[in-house]
Amino acid sequence: MIGNAIIGQSGGPTAVINASLYGIMSSALNSGFISRIYGMEYGIQGILDEKIVDLTPLSLSSDFKYLKYTPAAYLGTCRKKLSDDLSDPSYIRIFELLSKNNIKYFFYIGGNDSMDTVNKLQKYSEKIGYEIKIMGIPKTIDNDLSHTDHTPGYGSAAKYIACSMREILFDTEVYDVPSVTVTEIMGRHTGWLTASAVLARRFEGDNPLLFYLPENVFYMDKFLSDIEAAVRINKSLVIAVSEGIKTEDGKFVCDTNSSTDAFGHCKLGGCAQVLTGEINQKLGIKAKSIELSSLQRGAAHFTSLTDINEAAKAGEVAVHRAINGETGKMISLKRIKNYEIIYESVFVEKTSNIEKTMPENYYTGVDISPEFKDYCLPLILGEPRLQFENGLPKYLKRRS
Amino acid sequence: MIGNAIIGQSGGPTAVINASLYGIMSSALNSGFISRIYGMEYGIQGILDEKIVDLTPLSLSSDFKYLKYTPAAYLGTCRKKLSDDLSDPSYIRIFELLSKNNIKYFFYIGGNDSMDTVNKLQKYSEKIGYEIKIMGIPKTIDNDLSHTDHTPGYGSAAKYIACSMREILFDTEVYDVPSVTVTEIMGRHTGWLTASAVLARRFEGDNPLLFYLPENVFYMDKFLSDIEAAVRINKSLVIAVSEGIKTEDGKFVCDTNSSTDAFGHCKLGGCAQVLTGEINQKLGIKAKSIELSSLQRGAAHFTSLTDINEAAKAGEVAVHRAINGETGKMISLKRIKNYEIIYESVFVEKTSNIEKTMPENYYTGVDISPEFKDYCLPLILGEPRLQFENGLPKYLKRRS
Repeated sequence: MIGNAIIGQSGGPTAVINASLYGIMSSALNSGFISRIYGMEYGIQGILDEKIVDLTPLSLSSDFKYLKYTPAAYLGTCRKKLSDDLSDPSYIRIFELLSKNNIKYFFYIGGNDSMDTVNKLQKYSEKIGYEIKIMGIPKTIDNDLSHTDHTPGYGSAAKYIACSMREILFDTEVYDVPSVTVTEIMGRHTGWLTASAVLARRFEGDNPLLFYLPENVFYMDKFLSDIEAAVRINKSLVIAVSEGIKTEDGKFVCDTNSSTDAFGHCKLGGCAQVLTGEINQKLGIKAKSIELSSLQRGAAHFTSLTDINEAAKAGEVAVHRAINGETGKMISLKRIKNYEIIYESVFVEKTSNIEKTMPENYYTGVDISPEFKDYCLPLILGEPRLQFENGLPKYLKRRS
Repeated sequence: MIGNAIIGQSGGPTAVINASLYGIMSSALNSGFISRIYGMEYGIQGILDEKIVDLTPLSLSSDFKYLKYTPAAYLGTCRKKLSDDLSDPSYIRIFELLSKNNIKYFFYIGGNDSMDTVNKLQKYSEKIGYEIKIMGIPKTIDNDLSHTDHTPGYGSAAKYIACSMREILFDTEVYDVPSVTVTEIMGRHTGWLTASAVLARRFEGDNPLLFYLPENVFYMDKFLSDIEAAVRINKSLVIAVSEGIKTEDGKFVCDTNSSTDAFGHCKLGGCAQVLTGEINQKLGIKAKSIELSSLQRGAAHFTSLTDINEAAKAGEVAVHRAINGETGKMISLKRIKNYEIIYESVFVEKTSNIEKTMPENYYTGVDISPEFKDYCLPLILGEPRLQFENGLPKYLKRRS
């Protein structure tokens, strides 16, 4: 089937979401089946607003290669949720625009919520009999997508977190006074990212000594007694805490001034500060909090080459599969022993709106298991050779 | 004069303070005048506590080369202030230990406060007629030392800040909704570090659009009206704020729960959060704060090669000068046109306890001048080729 393609990015940015865009674009142009490549500005919202751009000139430009190493989302992204009701007028608008531009291939790079969008568009296309191949390319630093060994974006975030955490360990050890450093890490309702901080350890028994994951209920009393005991073992105590930890009543520890996004998700952040306050007050130990903040999802200056290459490959494979007639599917990464990845595809229906938490053998109490280290380590290996300009990595400026 | 040498590190850690240690050690060993090299644990406090270590084995080990790229302070550091009264018993203790170990060369790597220590020890050695050469090697990310073009440590911190800020710019642009991101940067009472964020700009008129430096009095009303105007120009507004900004009455904006260190300095941090609260509340614009935190002083994974080499060279030069008979001096970096550095030495008395603020031609209102960019850019150039192990840069583990 010959026609045009459109690509969208959705959900939170990552350091490698543009590597997937790069993979799709380079593969599409060489396919012989795709004539022009369009991009949606700000995800599906861009189609609704008729904000689409022709990406073909970019793919032919000499700057195209930098796209693979540029952080955030070149096309912009959104948190737009399509209606569950397929008779909603947005679907008509979307498919009018697709038809007008002879779009036969639709690629959407994103996480759980984005796969929900792919799933709905697939159903609507079947309903109206519009011939189109719709593919999802997994992306999230949170690694909470089901039916895939891991998600592109996770490896680079994990590498950045492990490295930053190790540098924090060095920093906390310089003074000869007891201190507790509470490091807050993203990951929403799962502990994948926080667990990656275990790779910062330089030796058995090293910091970070304690991990608090959303997979476990958080008890403040237990937390304070853990801290008291641990600071006796290591006077420069460093701990890793997930932004999404919850107490027994289901409330987020950070839940002071929360708000929700379009998918009804609570905005998280600030639990380290809450915990630091408790340690200072209740235990009288000097404590400080560090939030790794949005840098952990966009630090393209320090990415995993494994992750970048997998992100690009997932994009390429999506194009091949679509051309071969697959639709309504997400590319999935399957791990073969000793670390090799094969790319499969799964019906997106299976994956959308599911959050994959960590398996129980990956953590134990307040520690992370060796099994998790074996799982995570291959994902952070390798470093891209970046081009530099005026002392900074050369990134592709987002279209304005 | 033949004898042993002792080296100390003092004040806040940096990404390159160990490069200076490396420079001193490698130069000392090859000098023919220095027999053994000792290190003080936790700065001058280590001498008072008789915690000194023989560094000679390290300098001969195959791991020695990694010291140059290892963050924080290998020997540990302190904020100990020696008494102004030279008849204080600590001086007797210190010089007893120096004499016992036949120390003829004393190297102290640090900032303003550390130069105060160098100055006092020099005076005491003259008073008692103890023959020793005492040299200070400049170090601080804050760049607030006088009588030197810049300080080792600043270039790497500036590079990390510029890169992180650029990645923040990409991150903030992905959504099609107005937002303000307040980025808090270190630097104590001067704006050198905050100003370096201007290097993140990708084009004329790019973010960060507003800068708030301690060199200017901070007015909250003016700040809010600046924000209101700027967010109309750039819907993804990013601003850079110094931790040490003060209002007209001399109070720190972050001054809610401040405490002080041994030198009477207030511990800073948290002003971005105060400002974000004001923006949310008074202007009703979505705002978030990012503190670059201690990562900006210890991110050895992303340093300036220029800075690393200068830090090491400053250490080497200190050894040469000491052997040539200089004492009571600090190594100073002098810039020759088109960026070349020559190393001089200045009497430490001139530099200790002085904070060098930014010259007025380096900033104007809420912007940073092109003159500052010309000053700062050469300092962030070049990238070391790091060795990696398990996906992370190989650093030398601090002695335990």
